[in-house]
Amino acid sequence: MKFDLWYSEYQTKSLKLSTKVKDVLYTGKSEFQEIQIIDTYDFGKVLILDNTYQTTERDEFIYHELISHPALFTHPNPKTVLVIGGGDGGTVREVVKHPSVESIDFVELDEKVVEACKEHMPKLSCEIDNPKVNTLFTDGIKYVAETEKKYDVILVDCPDPVGPAKGLFEEEFYKNVFKCLTDDGIMVQQTESPLFNTDLIKDVGNYLKEAGFGIIKPLVCTIPTYPSGFWNFTVASKKYNPLESDREEIKEKLKEIDTIYYDEDVHIGVFLATPKYLK
Amino acid sequence: MKFDLWYSEYQTKSLKLSTKVKDVLYTGKSEFQEIQIIDTYDFGKVLILDNTYQTTERDEFIYHELISHPALFTHPNPKTVLVIGGGDGGTVREVVKHPSVESIDFVELDEKVVEACKEHMPKLSCEIDNPKVNTLFTDGIKYVAETEKKYDVILVDCPDPVGPAKGLFEEEFYKNVFKCLTDDGIMVQQTESPLFNTDLIKDVGNYLKEAGFGIIKPLVCTIPTYPSGFWNFTVASKKYNPLESDREEIKEKLKEIDTIYYDEDVHIGVFLATPKYLK
Repeated sequence: MKFDLWYSEYQTKSLKLSTKVKDVLYTGKSEFQEIQIIDTYDFGKVLILDNTYQTTERDEFIYHELISHPALFTHPNPKTVLVIGGGDGGTVREVVKHPSVESIDFVELDEKVVEACKEHMPKLSCEIDNPKVNTLFTDGIKYVAETEKKYDVILVDCPDPVGPAKGLFEEEFYKNVFKCLTDDGIMVQQTESPLFNTDLIKDVGNYLKEAGFGIIKPLVCTIPTYPSGFWNFTVASKKYNPLESDREEIKEKLKEIDTIYYDEDVHIGVFLATPKYLK
Repeated sequence: MKFDLWYSEYQTKSLKLSTKVKDVLYTGKSEFQEIQIIDTYDFGKVLILDNTYQTTERDEFIYHELISHPALFTHPNPKTVLVIGGGDGGTVREVVKHPSVESIDFVELDEKVVEACKEHMPKLSCEIDNPKVNTLFTDGIKYVAETEKKYDVILVDCPDPVGPAKGLFEEEFYKNVFKCLTDDGIMVQQTESPLFNTDLIKDVGNYLKEAGFGIIKPLVCTIPTYPSGFWNFTVASKKYNPLESDREEIKEKLKEIDTIYYDEDVHIGVFLATPKYLK
């Protein structure tokens, strides 16, 4: 007998995305969640947490470049960066590319995810041990509530708003993020699907406004393995408007920074391309 | 016994997207293909041709607005439009919204698709009987080869390049489209996934260049039920560059045209947001 092994995620009760599995590379359980890393035919290695696709080798550049570079190129000189979540290391890898950045505090809840990705997904986790990166295994919600540090950029690379990540989408969290940013600081968070989660996107926008951010901009892109594939990041800024960035300056800086997706046009395009109904 | 009915599309040999089915509304076979219309929980009514998702009520506005408005707003005064394919009628519906358009030739291979959509998907097919629309059931490849008519805008709303649609992605077709366009004409075609079909997108770009188009621009968006969700249209223009359109003028015209997704910012954004690797 010969079996085909497939991994299926129920993205809603009535929508299922299935990938054929080449190999199961890791399967484990931490105190927070179930962790799997599988190898697939279409997406290469895939990280799965609690039966939810998190990131894939094939398309991770879309997510990781778009959560990081629009903010890091909007700020003229980002030196200190806080990354909350993103245990696979992809976001940290993009931040490390910026020569202006002197230190990155990488706050991830689940050490087991980082360990698994360090072993099985080195393309993503390759910069976690960079001397500029200071890794802290703790709750990001608690961290921003308690720390007295200030950051130029805060990137919230969080899972869906269920379980321990729920608080990353609540009013209190955004107030603390505002507090932890310098006077010209910028934050970015993944904020789910503009097709399936419009209410959440609206709520986050309102919380950010109440927290004191003057500039709040959604950006859209495609993340193939997320529900509907249509995805959204929200950028909140105290001073700099990403739509007013100098494209020539970004182009100049990009001579030193390798990207696959992001360039000076994408910097503007992902904001402008946001559908009318979401604005 | 109680059964759950699901529809699954193998989007590749190793990637499957499944939707739970509320009801099967239509199932038939024409001389060209198998036709199904199902009602689903997440996407409303869905048109399926030869086991491939074509369009869904829930997200069809993304596809239909982006295949039509970027070209129709780039051209300052489109009067004559040719729509090839798009038997569901969604593209025709968007074209009809433009007051400048005087006549639309709607060339669709399969009359049975149009009949089924007229009966079961009136939200899309509602303008097919508009007096401005002249429907011809014939092969679009043959039509552009033989007609002596000239159009301001040609929209190629075609299925994947397999079976009878293969010729819609070949050199000869683009030469004929060029011939059928006025001196300042513009064409748009859906050109598959920027993740899975980069070679095809590159080939189409080259064919369009060889056909004589001076301005060729890819635009990107998300179509949730297509393979990878990451999707691409190619715009080819003889004279007008969509990136040089006057956004204020578009905004003014949009006071008379209802859209859900498209606006004057999206007009620019979808082109600028095209990933660096695709440019």
